[in-house]
Order: sequence, then C-alpha cells, then structure tokens
Amino acid sequence: MDIREESLKKHYEWKGKISIKANVKADTAEALALAYTPGVAEPCLAIKEDVNKSFDLTRRWNTVAVITDGTAVLGLGDIGPEAGMPVMEGKCLLFKEYGDIDAIPLCIRSKDVDEIVRTVELLCGSFGGINLEDIGAPRCFEIERKLKERCDIPIFHDDQHGTAVIAVAALINSLRLTGKKMDEIKVVINGAGAAGCAIGRLMLKVGVKNLIMCDKNGAICEGDEQMNLEHEALSHITNPNHERGKLSEIMKGADVFFGLSKPNLVTPEMVKSMNKDAVVFAMANPTPEIMPDEAKKAGARIVGTGRSDFPNQINNVLAFPGIFRGALDVRAKAITEEMKIAASYALANLISDDELTDDYILPKAFDERVCPAVAKAVANAYKA
Amino acid sequence: MDIREESLKKHYEWKGKISIKANVKADTAEALALAYTPGVAEPCLAIKEDVNKSFDLTRRWNTVAVITDGTAVLGLGDIGPEAGMPVMEGKCLLFKEYGDIDAIPLCIRSKDVDEIVRTVELLCGSFGGINLEDIGAPRCFEIERKLKERCDIPIFHDDQHGTAVIAVAALINSLRLTGKKMDEIKVVINGAGAAGCAIGRLMLKVGVKNLIMCDKNGAICEGDEQMNLEHEALSHITNPNHERGKLSEIMKGADVFFGLSKPNLVTPEMVKSMNKDAVVFAMANPTPEIMPDEAKKAGARIVGTGRSDFPNQINNVLAFPGIFRGALDVRAKAITEEMKIAASYALANLISDDELTDDYILPKAFDERVCPAVAKAVANAYKA
Repeated sequence: MDIREESLKKHYEWKGKISIKANVKADTAEALALAYTPGVAEPCLAIKEDVNKSFDLTRRWNTVAVITDGTAVLGLGDIGPEAGMPVMEGKCLLFKEYGDIDAIPLCIRSKDVDEIVRTVELLCGSFGGINLEDIGAPRCFEIERKLKERCDIPIFHDDQHGTAVIAVAALINSLRLTGKKMDEIKVVINGAGAAGCAIGRLMLKVGVKNLIMCDKNGAICEGDEQMNLEHEALSHITNPNHERGKLSEIMKGADVFFGLSKPNLVTPEMVKSMNKDAVVFAMANPTPEIMPDEAKKAGARIVGTGRSDFPNQINNVLAFPGIFRGALDVRAKAITEEMKIAASYALANLISDDELTDDYILPKAFDERVCPAVAKAVANAYKA
Repeated sequence: MDIREESLKKHYEWKGKISIKANVKADTAEALALAYTPGVAEPCLAIKEDVNKSFDLTRRWNTVAVITDGTAVLGLGDIGPEAGMPVMEGKCLLFKEYGDIDAIPLCIRSKDVDEIVRTVELLCGSFGGINLEDIGAPRCFEIERKLKERCDIPIFHDDQHGTAVIAVAALINSLRLTGKKMDEIKVVINGAGAAGCAIGRLMLKVGVKNLIMCDKNGAICEGDEQMNLEHEALSHITNPNHERGKLSEIMKGADVFFGLSKPNLVTPEMVKSMNKDAVVFAMANPTPEIMPDEAKKAGARIVGTGRSDFPNQINNVLAFPGIFRGALDVRAKAITEEMKIAASYALANLISDDELTDDYILPKAFDERVCPAVAKAVANAYKA
C-alpha cells in the first residue's frame, strides 16, 4: 500500500494521535478538594499575586501551542484550518516524543494577519511558548514580527527558523569537510518563501557574506521593483555584487546551493557550473530540485535533501524539540538569534571529526543525543 | 494542615494536573512517515474535501476547550486569566477522569465581550465543544449568546447550565418526596448572577409557573428600572404575581428556596415563613446562606448545599462530564434545552423510589453510573 493511503487508514484507526492524560487523582472527596474546589483557590491567589507562578503551579512551564491557519500545509497549500490539523497533531506528537513537551494543536479560522495576531496574543497566558506552523509567506513574517512585539513568551515559526537552524548546521559541517570559510563562499538559495528567507538571514548571522536569494524571477537584487517587504529587506543585505539573472546564471561559481523550490529545477549543467567541492541541498518535497545521484555525477561533493531515504536529511525534528525544550527550561521570553545559532552549532558538533563524511553531515532524526544537546546549547545561549 | 495550604503545596509538587499523551509511535522512519510527513498529507486532503472528517481523522471528536477570562473565578472574583488556570486545569482533569474527554485549558487576556467571542469563534475548528468557565455576569450571557449564533459546535457555560441541570434534578426529586407539582409550587431563587438566572430559566422549562428571582435589592419584577438585559428578559417571564420586596418578604409561603448568594443571608425565621415541606438549597460557598441543621430546625424538610460534608450536594461534576460526553458522542452542534432537561431527569432517576430520602435526593459525585446515564440521555435528546 502507498504510504499516504496507509497513513489515511491509520488515521481512521487512531482517531487522533494525542490525548490528555490526568496526572492527579480526583476520585475521592479529599482528592477533589485538593485538585479542585475548595483547595485550588490557594494556587489561584498565588498566581494573582505573582503571575510568574503560573509557570510553577500549572502546566504552563511545559506547554506549547502549535498554531496554524491552514494556508501553507505541507506542499498542499491553502487547504483550510481543520485540514491542517492532522499535521498539527503530528507535530504535537513529535514535541512529546522527542522533547517531552506538552503541545496543543490549534487552528485559526482566519487569514487576516491582525486577527491571527490578536487571537494568539490573547491566549499567551495559557502557554510557555508558541510554535507557528504552515502559515503562508509573506503573511507569516508579519504575524511573527507582531507577535514577538506583543507576547511575553517565545514565538517560533518552525517552517522558517527550525529549517534555518538545520540548514546552517549542514552548512557548518559542509565547510568543516571542504575547508572553505563562511566569509569567502558564494551561497545561492532558490525559493524565497518562509524557509528560504529564514535560512538566508541565519546564514548572514553566522558570517556568510556573498549570499544570493532567488525566486522564480531569478536573483533578488537591491532596486528590484514589486518586492514584498521581506524581499525588500533582504535585498539590502544580500547579493553584494548585485548579480542579476536567472538561477542558472547565478549558480555559476557558487559553493553552496540550497533549494526550497520545485522538483527538477536544477540541471546537471547548473551543478557543473558551480565551484569545486560544491554543496547541494535540494529540499523540494517529495521530489528534490535534482536527484542526489545526478548531482553527485555532475560534480557535487556533498548532497542533501528533505527525504529520509537519502543521506544528509534536513529533518525539522532535529531542531524544534530541543529549541523549545531549552527555551522552556530557562523560561525564555523569546528565542533569540543567539539561541538559534547555538542550536546549529550544537547539531553540527554532535558529529565528531572522525565520524564526519560527505554522506554524514547531520545527525539522524532518531539520534537520542540530539534533543538534549540542542536544548542545553539553547538554554545556555539565552541572555548569554 | 488547612486544605487550601495543602492544595498549594500539592500544586507546587504536581507542576500541572494534566499533560499530553502520545497515542502513536514516532520512533522509526516508517512510523514518522505514517504519523507525519509524507503520509499525513492524505488525511489532510480528506478533511479538505469534507471538513466533517476532522471528527474522524483528528482528536476533535473528543476534545473540549475549557475557556475563561479569569473574571469570576470560584468566589475569588476577577483575579486575572493566568490566575484562573489552576481551576481550568482542575476542570480538565475532571473532564478526563469522569467523562474520558480530552479537555484543554485556555485563558484569554481580555475582558471585552466581542474580543472574547471572536477569539473563541476563530478556534472552533480545533474542538468538538466549548466549555465556558468562571466568566462574570452579565458578560457571560452575551458571550454565550453570540458564540451560539456563530459556532458550529456546542457552547456551554458550565457555571450557568451545569449548575441549572443539577438544581432541576434536585427539584424533581424534592417534588417526588413531597408530592407537590411543578406548576403549583412557589420557587424563590436568591442571587441573579450566571447560575441563578440559568437555574430560573431551566425551572421554567420544566414547568415551574411561580418563580421569583431575587438579587440584593429584593424581588426582580416587571417594570423595575436599571435592570441588565438578562434581568429585564427574566422579569417578563417570572414573578407572575408581581411580588415586590425584600427576600424575607418574598420567601413567605415559598415551597422551594435556592440560594446562590452570600453566607448567612437566610434566617431561621425566613425558613419558618415558608410553606410546609419546605425545600432549601443554600449553595453559597464555602458557608451556606443558612447552615443545614438550622434550616432543618426551622422546619425545612429537604436541605442541600454546595458542600461535600453535608447531604444533597450540588456538585457540578454530576453534570458536565456526561453532558459533553453525550454531545460529543452524537457530534451535536449545540446543547439544547431538551438535552439539559434530559440530563436533569437522568440524574434524578438514578435514585429509585426505594432509595430516595430527604437526605439522598442526588447521586454522589463518585457514583460511576452518573456520567454514562447523563451521556445517554443527552445523546438521545439531541434532535429528539
């Protein structure tokens, strides 16, 4: 049976991948009086006196909301809030299994930026963190920016920043292998949506100087017309040599390519035009921009994809459980750039010099060292 | 140790009374591909085609949100959204333990009726039902009314309707004992907030004709000035003889008294002024309007309170788990008057003629027959 058909069948059997668990008894008058009325009045008053005690006296310390508007679900696009929920539940399942975090799936029946922001903002007191998921670009940028201004808990759009953390880890370890330097390489990112833009920004933060973002019209360049706000902002800090042209032009002489675009967009010729020891991450799903064997044959040294059936998988489960675990552990009020960079290095450094090879630059998704290592690095980087 | 102090200590130990449980494995590539990407695309698309399938393919069928704004928490008043959360978590614990329902506590950082309504409305696709909790009157009436108009899942303010269902069950069994008839008795309700008004409305629905609502100014009567919308509406359908005056006046000749007001408001003289076989439910917390022994000594035949250490406790756990269990089981789009009345009769009828005594008119909170019996009656009454 096809994996998707089998998944549908399983979902009918499961009738939900997560549920609520009672951690306390409520089956005697005394138990009820402690967990509920009249005893519960006392923890309520303690929180009234000091709202931070909600992190001690309720589950808030370990609770994250996974929130979507259903507009950019997987590669399926705008399928509606309820239709996004199997993914949100799956994400909550991964939060629990990988990070021991209590995550709650919520979908919002609105596509209006301000309505979504206001809804999440009003719910913040219920959670220790907010994971935004599968919200379309460019709305996701504005939603995240506004929420960060207004909320006193971490706001994290995983499609952007989780992906970026892993991409940067992959970049770090690629350079360990090739011996090239961050400030000397030319990096091309094709696909300037949520993930592509976030990867670009984080790469700049770790020292990449010559970064060129491309969308379907080719290189994004300062002075271009009709850019959205995020592209406009990026145009000023990327593409320092003002290269213009199609992807095939821009890829010439590049050291690193990250694709977050469409299947089969990259030809062997384009890979051949890259610099020596080329790094190609072709992350279009389910079919990459170029298949790994083709890319290798065309001269790429390190190749990765989003798929588990090829080496060097960019799998988001490598990042978000540890990032939130670390943030919750220190009751962080935000997830800063420093925390994300620390997460990238922690991921990269899990692979020792002895282990590091062209086909093993990222830990496996099921490597149990991943979440604790990322969490520790993220917690240490908070306010550091 | 005092129960409230002990509860505070326990809450520090528990660090949350509920958590998330994973129902599915995600520890191998195959498991991940089924529960998450790429397999999960198929259940997403199935829901996109038919949004009702969200009740089959996610946990929505069993999930209820417990929502507060923190403005009327227990008897503590407006203590703020986060401070209400220990109660909300406790409620979710009871939902799980008594009804096997997955309930999620949410607090909203707003006191604005329209903002609260919009927030809940936008989240409805995530849940199978909404339990409003500890929202102050009269705002709770407007919030509930607007939500019922706008949402396609049951909206239930437990402080109103859960209490009303149990109060009516208590009334039904009181009349079984005294042999009086619904349309012949005089009922006085003191306290015209959320619970009092809802009890009054449900009593009218089961056939009470001579019902008088009182607030701190005495009887609510048609033509009174400066009433809120709910009192204005009730003034037209209660107090048919246009009685005016203080509670002590109104209680003269009454058959049934329900107090949802303040401790010690009712004197033995007031009980003595009631009709023969008087029924007195003094539900002020933690100290009743009149202590049970005093009420009995003054001539009351049946006495109940909100407390577990006296007979005939009005305990909300008797109603809400079964009401939501029944509503979820039939995927009800609303909880109708018929469903609430059915719940009252189901509760009352759990006590056989042989068992029924003046000190045993309601099932005990821990009676395991309660939730299934209420659920079945509620499910059967939907659309019936």
